[in-house]
Amino acid sequence: MSIENKFPGKDISTEDLKTKFPLVAKQHPYHRSRFDIAGIEFGGDHIPIFAGPNMVESQELILDIAINVKAAGAHFLRGGAFKPLTFPYRSERYTETREKGIEWMVEARSKTGIPIITEVMEEKYIPLISEAADILQIGSRNMQNYPFLSACAKTGKPIMLKRHYGSSLRDWLGAAEYLLVEGNQKVVLCERGVSTPHTHRATSRFLLDLQVVPAAQEMTHLPVVVDPSHATFWRPWVSPMSLAGIAAGADGIMLEVHPDPQNAAVDPLQAINYADFTNLVVKMRSVSHAIGRNV
Amino acid sequence: MSIENKFPGKDISTEDLKTKFPLVAKQHPYHRSRFDIAGIEFGGDHIPIFAGPNMVESQELILDIAINVKAAGAHFLRGGAFKPLTFPYRSERYTETREKGIEWMVEARSKTGIPIITEVMEEKYIPLISEAADILQIGSRNMQNYPFLSACAKTGKPIMLKRHYGSSLRDWLGAAEYLLVEGNQKVVLCERGVSTPHTHRATSRFLLDLQVVPAAQEMTHLPVVVDPSHATFWRPWVSPMSLAGIAAGADGIMLEVHPDPQNAAVDPLQAINYADFTNLVVKMRSVSHAIGRNV
Amino acid sequence: MSIENKFPGKDISTEDLKTKFPLVAKQHPYHRSRFDIAGIEFGGDHIPIFAGPNMVESQELILDIAINVKAAGAHFLRGGAFKPLTFPYRSERYTETREKGIEWMVEARSKTGIPIITEVMEEKYIPLISEAADILQIGSRNMQNYPFLSACAKTGKPIMLKRHYGSSLRDWLGAAEYLLVEGNQKVVLCERGVSTPHTHRATSRFLLDLQVVPAAQEMTHLPVVVDPSHATFWRPWVSPMSLAGIAAGADGIMLEVHPDPQNAAVDPLQAINYADFTNLVVKMRSVSHAIGRNV
Amino acid sequence: MSIENKFPGKDISTEDLKTKFPLVAKQHPYHRSRFDIAGIEFGGDHIPIFAGPNMVESQELILDIAINVKAAGAHFLRGGAFKPLTFPYRSERYTETREKGIEWMVEARSKTGIPIITEVMEEKYIPLISEAADILQIGSRNMQNYPFLSACAKTGKPIMLKRHYGSSLRDWLGAAEYLLVEGNQKVVLCERGVSTPHTHRATSRFLLDLQVVPAAQEMTHLPVVVDPSHATFWRPWVSPMSLAGIAAGADGIMLEVHPDPQNAAVDPLQAINYADFTNLVVKMRSVSHAIGRNV
Repeated sequence: MSIENKFPGKDISTEDLKTKFPLVAKQHPYHRSRFDIAGIEFGGDHIPIFAGPNMVESQELILDIAINVKAAGAHFLRGGAFKPLTFPYRSERYTETREKGIEWMVEARSKTGIPIITEVMEEKYIPLISEAADILQIGSRNMQNYPFLSACAKTGKPIMLKRHYGSSLRDWLGAAEYLLVEGNQKVVLCERGVSTPHTHRATSRFLLDLQVVPAAQEMTHLPVVVDPSHATFWRPWVSPMSLAGIAAGADGIMLEVHPDPQNAAVDPLQAINYADFTNLVVKMRSVSHAIGRNV
Repeated sequence: MSIENKFPGKDISTEDLKTKFPLVAKQHPYHRSRFDIAGIEFGGDHIPIFAGPNMVESQELILDIAINVKAAGAHFLRGGAFKPLTFPYRSERYTETREKGIEWMVEARSKTGIPIITEVMEEKYIPLISEAADILQIGSRNMQNYPFLSACAKTGKPIMLKRHYGSSLRDWLGAAEYLLVEGNQKVVLCERGVSTPHTHRATSRFLLDLQVVPAAQEMTHLPVVVDPSHATFWRPWVSPMSLAGIAAGADGIMLEVHPDPQNAAVDPLQAINYADFTNLVVKMRSVSHAIGRNV
Repeated sequence: MSIENKFPGKDISTEDLKTKFPLVAKQHPYHRSRFDIAGIEFGGDHIPIFAGPNMVESQELILDIAINVKAAGAHFLRGGAFKPLTFPYRSERYTETREKGIEWMVEARSKTGIPIITEVMEEKYIPLISEAADILQIGSRNMQNYPFLSACAKTGKPIMLKRHYGSSLRDWLGAAEYLLVEGNQKVVLCERGVSTPHTHRATSRFLLDLQVVPAAQEMTHLPVVVDPSHATFWRPWVSPMSLAGIAAGADGIMLEVHPDPQNAAVDPLQAINYADFTNLVVKMRSVSHAIGRNV
Repeated sequence: MSIENKFPGKDISTEDLKTKFPLVAKQHPYHRSRFDIAGIEFGGDHIPIFAGPNMVESQELILDIAINVKAAGAHFLRGGAFKPLTFPYRSERYTETREKGIEWMVEARSKTGIPIITEVMEEKYIPLISEAADILQIGSRNMQNYPFLSACAKTGKPIMLKRHYGSSLRDWLGAAEYLLVEGNQKVVLCERGVSTPHTHRATSRFLLDLQVVPAAQEMTHLPVVVDPSHATFWRPWVSPMSLAGIAAGADGIMLEVHPDPQNAAVDPLQAINYADFTNLVVKMRSVSHAIGRNV
């Protein structure tokens, strides 16, 4: 029995590669997409760092974070202005800043020069966010919202497609194909933790799946970013898993950074502070050099 | 340590019940929503059966199925006219019938009197489908597409909310809260299989989670339907798992029925034929009586 | 590509059936092992019930339970005298009664006539327990302890092989083959919950996998018992999942019964009391009749 | 609610740390066990490499491998002489070499000076293997075979305890406590892949869990080794996941090395050849230096 026959429906077959995601699939073993976004190279030896708060809490905060993460070596400022919630009620602290948040991010960029990425959560905000952001982030809840994927792709803006915590690599690449089929070439994948029987702490909902990095890179030419903050949900594990992501071959690392993590409006257990981020960038740089790449 | 303290973030706590899904949560242990849809009772002793093809392939087919499943005891005709696909390409056989498919379902209803349920996949089709269907089905890929949930709920039409294959009970009930908060009272939950390490056949992607039936019924007053066809993906397991669903307390059973399953346009491994469906209804009726309910 | 080719290493292939577990595999679709243990029929229409405490706490307790579960309709008295523990320390309450516990079970049998099943945990106790018990129970931790499986099988005593919470059907049947290859014909499988990303309560470690019942029965002629107490770890779910087990086709149901569950030495959240057990047997009988079998 | 209260039964609580595994638990945040085995340091900055074939196929092969992996920088020669099998039948190629295999490993050590590690599968071989090997390896199937753990620990020999593919960190540390309670101080943990819903290839049964490295190191002072060969089951992923293991903080890396992987008696998809191993050691050394450690 050939290896090919061993790939059943829930995994990827050579047949899939040809017919299901011909645009996402590699054309030859060394095929890798290389492109730049806001002057930052993706898919080559360079490993961009995305850093910022889970939530754009205020004008001052996002500017302060922009200045600090840029100084420490981040290439993109991340931040949520529109935030999905598992439940329809928001506590006072957890209020979206929405249009204002986007405005503050744009201001932070214009003052510091750092390009920005933020999540677009629904179709009606695509014009606003595609005008403002350098990269549109599609969250895991929307990974299989195909009409939304198409609408985002049609803006022509670079897109980061987060993997759903319950999705196979096959489903994820299928979603990416929905982006590429619209003619959008600048698509970046992002692994952010999967649901498994054991995550080691009750407060940790996910397991960072680093095996998907070489697995995805075997199948697709698209860059694969890793988000250890969201995946681990636990500050002490963010640094080792970021370094592990680099060593596994990740084409980017996304981190939650906040000046005062314990008082962050959201996810206080996982953000790291400026000093920790600065140290981590130094270490990531060091590990990247060890494998012939650079942060 | 109290039991309550043992519920961490990824499971449901009493705190959650009060603040995160106050409308979905039971107000007292015997609290159960009872309502009727198209004259069919939900949430009481009666267990409605939904039957029909995965896909509304043609006008003749859906009428033939409507006649046959109604004769065998089905309460609702199910059928997909708009169908989500994991990949953006459709084979010739797997073409959506879309508006026509909806029209054919409506015609089948008018000729047979059986009410209909069909999936609404994107916002632009909500008016069309909410006018035509008796129940709007929200598929698992859209379970956490919150703006879409709100838009569906605002139609005032009864809704079936399928559980995502990777979602916790907490996430599922949170999504249901998004429906109830719009004032929509007629919400039905539907379990259709979850991703687990082992599903017993390579061709089976999911495991039917029957434990979620008593678990959900412990937390919420909403009816819980079970879909063994999609979950098992394997015809020989559909009958035992349907009966098990009834015995576990399911408030409805959803089945794929096709006159010629092996030549069905979609999912030929899981649909059952008329004779098997007829036999299964008899058995489900028998098991329902054994637990003091009726199909 | 044939269906057969779709079965990869982690699932079962036709090739496996022939070469990996020829003794466990069905020889024809209607092949089912039928045998009796202590006068109780297995593998036919009859569904034996196993009931008793997690732990044989005292002489009085086990006798009282034996009398009561027998009166309510149980066919076997279960009880742990030798108990595995995840950690090497035992609290005072959680002390094994060991040889004495076995003696008390034997006495309960001689006074009531109910046959007994108990776990054998290590090789040195095989002689003791195979002399005393009507069925040797092999716990999930020992499911792949192959030398131990062989030693148990060689006693010629009937064996119940519990599935490990992380094992595939393939691994489980492989373990059963180790028993049959020793010439032992009276082997009963027992599903007791698997590890999955979501179990619905933090206090619930496992999900009862009822899909494995028809799946196993498709592959093997051996009877398949279901243990909802251990799997759900939560009293309110035991009754619905027991009934669901019967309806799914289980060839036996194993339950934890204790006169005062909240004060049981072990697992106080999952045992049911005499009244609940009595009611449940009535319901299980009713469901079994509905599918043409009997409890 | 305190963090501690958020740790339920299936995860680790502070209560657990004190009462369930007091010997395994860290006494203070910087507590790490440091010891040497056969002159090789564990638990400090040094990261030992274990390399060798899945199976000790022949006298010539194991000597050839010993020479080559030692030359490339391996610290321990691994190899299976007694091999567990999921099914009781062995193909001709997959024959254990047993006592002879152990003898050949001892010979390879005496000729090259490289210390050896091999799996001990059952109690009766403990004397033989504890006399021959520098480290006793306990396989995942035996992780919760507690009498066997005790017997191994009592030899006083260093032990590597592999994690079961379905076990929680809590269960794993509980098993380690069974070793430490016998007075054995030289215990090394080894992660070798866990069962999850998605492993990315049908031929890959497991997902390498690198998140467990910082998680285990947060709880216990014992060294944590990572085995990417067995976990990934796929050669192209072994190198990136080995480097990721180092970067995640692993205290050792275990690899399958074979001169002619495609013709290896066992697991031909996962072993790497001498050239690949040599290159990988260079890279692992480089990554280890980047984080202030050394291979």
